[in-house]
Amino acid sequence: MMSNEKRGEAIDLSHHLSKVGQARQTSPLKSLHKYMGKPGLISLAGGLPNAGYFPFASVSGEILAPDSFPLETGSKDSSLSWFWKLFSRSEKERTSTFTVGKYPKHPGDLNLESGLQYGLATGQPKLNEIIREFVGKVFQPAYSNWTTLVHTGNTDAWSKTVQTILNPGEGLLVSEWTYPSAMASAQPFGVIPVPIGMDSEGMSSISLQKTLAEWDESVRGFPRPRVMYTVPIGQNPTGTTMGIQRKKEIYDICVEYDIIIVEDDPYYFLQQGEYVPKADRVTDAANGDDEVFIASLAPSYLKVDYQGRVIRLDTFSKTVCPGSRLGWFTCNPMFAERLERTAETSSQAPSGFTQLYVASLLLKWQYDGYIRWLKALRLQYKQRRDYFLDCFGEEFHLQKAFSTEGYTAGAHLYHASLKPKRSFVPLSEKDTAYSKPLFSYIAPTSGMFVWLELHLEEHPSFTSLGYKALEMKLWTEIAEAGVLFAPGAMFFATKVEDDTPGPGHFRVSFSNSSPEEMKKAVSTFGTVLRKFMHTRI
Amino acid sequence: MMSNEKRGEAIDLSHHLSKVGQARQTSPLKSLHKYMGKPGLISLAGGLPNAGYFPFASVSGEILAPDSFPLETGSKDSSLSWFWKLFSRSEKERTSTFTVGKYPKHPGDLNLESGLQYGLATGQPKLNEIIREFVGKVFQPAYSNWTTLVHTGNTDAWSKTVQTILNPGEGLLVSEWTYPSAMASAQPFGVIPVPIGMDSEGMSSISLQKTLAEWDESVRGFPRPRVMYTVPIGQNPTGTTMGIQRKKEIYDICVEYDIIIVEDDPYYFLQQGEYVPKADRVTDAANGDDEVFIASLAPSYLKVDYQGRVIRLDTFSKTVCPGSRLGWFTCNPMFAERLERTAETSSQAPSGFTQLYVASLLLKWQYDGYIRWLKALRLQYKQRRDYFLDCFGEEFHLQKAFSTEGYTAGAHLYHASLKPKRSFVPLSEKDTAYSKPLFSYIAPTSGMFVWLELHLEEHPSFTSLGYKALEMKLWTEIAEAGVLFAPGAMFFATKVEDDTPGPGHFRVSFSNSSPEEMKKAVSTFGTVLRKFMHTRI
Repeated sequence: MMSNEKRGEAIDLSHHLSKVGQARQTSPLKSLHKYMGKPGLISLAGGLPNAGYFPFASVSGEILAPDSFPLETGSKDSSLSWFWKLFSRSEKERTSTFTVGKYPKHPGDLNLESGLQYGLATGQPKLNEIIREFVGKVFQPAYSNWTTLVHTGNTDAWSKTVQTILNPGEGLLVSEWTYPSAMASAQPFGVIPVPIGMDSEGMSSISLQKTLAEWDESVRGFPRPRVMYTVPIGQNPTGTTMGIQRKKEIYDICVEYDIIIVEDDPYYFLQQGEYVPKADRVTDAANGDDEVFIASLAPSYLKVDYQGRVIRLDTFSKTVCPGSRLGWFTCNPMFAERLERTAETSSQAPSGFTQLYVASLLLKWQYDGYIRWLKALRLQYKQRRDYFLDCFGEEFHLQKAFSTEGYTAGAHLYHASLKPKRSFVPLSEKDTAYSKPLFSYIAPTSGMFVWLELHLEEHPSFTSLGYKALEMKLWTEIAEAGVLFAPGAMFFATKVEDDTPGPGHFRVSFSNSSPEEMKKAVSTFGTVLRKFMHTRI
Repeated sequence: MMSNEKRGEAIDLSHHLSKVGQARQTSPLKSLHKYMGKPGLISLAGGLPNAGYFPFASVSGEILAPDSFPLETGSKDSSLSWFWKLFSRSEKERTSTFTVGKYPKHPGDLNLESGLQYGLATGQPKLNEIIREFVGKVFQPAYSNWTTLVHTGNTDAWSKTVQTILNPGEGLLVSEWTYPSAMASAQPFGVIPVPIGMDSEGMSSISLQKTLAEWDESVRGFPRPRVMYTVPIGQNPTGTTMGIQRKKEIYDICVEYDIIIVEDDPYYFLQQGEYVPKADRVTDAANGDDEVFIASLAPSYLKVDYQGRVIRLDTFSKTVCPGSRLGWFTCNPMFAERLERTAETSSQAPSGFTQLYVASLLLKWQYDGYIRWLKALRLQYKQRRDYFLDCFGEEFHLQKAFSTEGYTAGAHLYHASLKPKRSFVPLSEKDTAYSKPLFSYIAPTSGMFVWLELHLEEHPSFTSLGYKALEMKLWTEIAEAGVLFAPGAMFFATKVEDDTPGPGHFRVSFSNSSPEEMKKAVSTFGTVLRKFMHTRI
């Protein structure tokens, strides 16, 4: 069903509130809100310190120009010129400054008097206007009465969502490989992860349908889940991207089985598209207008959510900075009201400093400037991804093969083998051949990570140690050699035991390192792997 | 038992962890921490954006001098000169500036590269050093291995504490009048408030002992509580101060019954001492050195906590600004570790902007400067309290009487009556006399609030409406006249129904308004009350 044609209001989903979510009291200050902001009102109701006692007279910031990064990849001079620019820490940055004074000079000015005071959990009005405009234009929710609510980052947002809609002993639908911190937020509350099979678009609609249709409470021991947690763009850890068709399929199943979808989407603007090996690569340019850019991105679940059953989590962590600890929910007003009550009795409003800085940035940049920033940011990550995968291509011998099974089904797999040793001494026949593939991966299309699957069957201790132990042994060797990967076992939706079947994995990030570091890391991996495969443990 | 003599380590209190508190997973990144910070390490483990993509080149702030406010009350020129200074919004403020650049110029400099990056839930090391020094010198915990952990404000800290140590269906010891937001955080989790009687030092040790000794689970329906929530300084709403002797009594009872004390102490530095009516008032000066100042304050429960059973919540909201959303736990390492795990899976670290600003402020001021600021801040609030109570003395006829019962026992009560009307027309005999007392209060000795108890028995609709309805009717009349009080019923530890016995109350703040506003508010209250008492509803 194409939802934009309808644009009705959200349906009643209040039966999805948890016991805690229902029990959150209506704000005791509600009777006061009626009077607040009345001209001349003297409020002696709250415990507000006078702004005269705030020890800050003003705060200022130097902001980068929104077009600080280019709109095309590569350049005639060097494919890495953007890196050089980035890491030179030069004084060449184009910046502008803003200052927020203690008291507003003009009505509506950002100011410390209100910005550093206690505030509603809904945050600064100016920030909310910006966010609302952004969601409407970029994510285009399919129902009319969607709302937004600021939060203090997606981890906290997910934690609040768990408390608001999940009861102890209930199941949670997740991809079989998923973000471990999200599981760590939910599991202490007695929530049970229910892994769903994946392919190269992330969660499989076939596996989801099958799991739900065949659900037998007497076998499983708990009722059919009614909540899903998903990272559809830059799936964590596999780096895949879910398109609109898959989202429609999954959404329709969720309508059929009355399931709430929590869409955790930190990597939305880090969509990099298909990887093209260096030799065949052409310049990627983002010269289209804003609508073309937005239309080029895989849409959010919001775009198909005509019933208001999606709780979307957005964050400024990847597009501004993680230290902002700022993001927002987009969801129907019923969930938003319950989440606001939860915020009132926990985090309250996000930090005033954060709100002032992010609001000042976006007011300076305006919507157009922020979109300009995001267009270029996407290309920065695309080039990082490309460069990092190029390093694998140089260090290892790669064989490309189309995958038809497992979480890689539908994508090209790169099987990586060790190249023959270069040596001045005569080579044995064994040394002149490629090794059998020791790991494989699909090229990520979004996010920050490459997900490596290990093939260590030829290791001399494979039979005695098994995969999980070998994963950790190899991880430790790489770490000792000065390169940290993320061990794969922790991304498994359910607990991994020593005898859990399946190969080992590493999640490897290309988001932060310099090109020299990336190159060195991949080369170190090759050196360690070569030695590791010949060492009995 | 005097605890400083022992200075042993915290005893084992792990049996006080809730199911959720126990179930919080050890950080999956623990194996990584071993390698982090190693020189030359290339970390591809996390999802960290490169600092080059943070759109801030630097952040700056203008900081008030720590001696911006005077160290004595009043002055020869005018007792309100401090108000004028404060509200003139003049350019006379003495300030200094700081700037935090993107990258450190010298090792250890605060910088945006790490300050706006993902960080450990334990926060910036420099901030932690400052906090630890402060706690050691000011609160002087009585056991040796106490620790501190930053949080995002006392409301969130309390919410995390509830999850970490309370199970659904358990009781929570609280003062019979208490902070409603704290109850709103706990009750949705099925925690049952157990009100304890009070006197003019706050919670009564006699009432506590009696409640615990006589606890009968078969009558109460749940086990004897093992957690206490308390605001001992500037008790909210009554404004009282608990001294060291009472704290020792309560602590000893908590040792006997194995109870964890959660000390929520936002008003610690707002200790104002006894109220002296204007005519008898002398200048209060804080000329002593830092140790004298610290010794003059009622100590924290930490000072008697030789077993590590106190979880103390501190906040920068009242001493720096509420928008900082920053504070810290002081508690034993076992609780701190569990609270850190909770933070990792919810709020993570406090906002990087906040941490940079508060750390910059305190690094600039140093410990001595911050103590200087707090000394003066205390006097600012003392003068606010005095001025506000003076307004009551001018608007109403006050009779002072020593109270021996209820939450005011042990303090002087001010009974407030309406003065005779001033009028040019001949007065009836009734109009020339004071009314019966219509409300009463004890002068607060800490915090931000005066707690008014209403005596509306003479109201023409008293018999038909009852107290609770009259409280809200009067509250609404005052609000309609342009002054907001906080309605009293919401501060009752358990839910107030229309037929709950007892008088009505208002909580009235003197923390934020100008003297003109305070005066006008009290005068408006008088005018409304006069009319209200003659109006049948």
